[in-house]
Amino acid sequence: MTGTIRIIGIDPGLRRTGWGVIDVTGNRLAFVACGTVTSDDKADLATRLASLHRGLTDVLAAWSPEEAAVEQTFVNKDATATLKLGQARGIAMVVPALAGIPVAEYEPNKVKKSVVGAGHAEKNQIHMMIGILLPKADPKTMDAADALAIAVTHAHHRTGPGRR
Amino acid sequence: MTGTIRIIGIDPGLRRTGWGVIDVTGNRLAFVACGTVTSDDKADLATRLASLHRGLTDVLAAWSPEEAAVEQTFVNKDATATLKLGQARGIAMVVPALAGIPVAEYEPNKVKKSVVGAGHAEKNQIHMMIGILLPKADPKTMDAADALAIAVTHAHHRTGPGRR
Repeated sequence: MTGTIRIIGIDPGLRRTGWGVIDVTGNRLAFVACGTVTSDDKADLATRLASLHRGLTDVLAAWSPEEAAVEQTFVNKDATATLKLGQARGIAMVVPALAGIPVAEYEPNKVKKSVVGAGHAEKNQIHMMIGILLPKADPKTMDAADALAIAVTHAHHRTGPGRR
Repeated sequence: MTGTIRIIGIDPGLRRTGWGVIDVTGNRLAFVACGTVTSDDKADLATRLASLHRGLTDVLAAWSPEEAAVEQTFVNKDATATLKLGQARGIAMVVPALAGIPVAEYEPNKVKKSVVGAGHAEKNQIHMMIGILLPKADPKTMDAADALAIAVTHAHHRTGPGRR
């Protein structure tokens, strides 16, 4: 596997955190796996965060990515929603960091520009391009497709075999 | 130690997370330990969150609290600050949850009212009352003192020996 780097993209959310794993060899991309880690919205917040933490820890153990990329959350005007997203995002960032994996962050516009070629692309254009760039990918949820887009963005922007 | 419950209070922050441990026997409170877990503000976000995670995990292992209480973060108008605090707060909530400890949340006004008797109390009134309620406490930082106040609040509001 010399010259191949395995990347996990993570799209954080308290209810659903999407993840997508790809292999990058030079400028070739290959789909590996994707899915969604969920938490029970009837459970208390700490329990929900622990579910996401355990779920992502299992995904990392199963697929052994070497680098991680997380979407830099859109900061909207609703402070309560921002706080909630921040809490889920803290888990998405810390799980790979605890495993010793470097974690890059990308703004949504950078993800759109990387995948579609335009910063103002629509969600469905991103998902269509994921189908073209990673023909074997079969994301069952929008969150998993978004996570693959974040992984593709990191493949385009990472520099060298080590930390970016 | 029948009838005694050990509580950890946590005041989350990305740069400094305060913690304070007390023992509660009936309506008697006893100081156990307090301190601050810090992260290097020159490190990247994921690394900083991992430092807080490891630091809090060590504190829990050292003091074995049975219940945890975390301040319900004040949601201010600065979305970037709210997001950052949310990320640190996610770590403060998830570490005890991963250890199987129930985590309660209290609003700042409830903490003030519990400790000082008035929801509009000033910070220095809280710290003075901590000195009266827990005479052996020696918080070196405001964050550790705040964390003890959160633990005292939980001591007043928790119901029964189990989850509140």
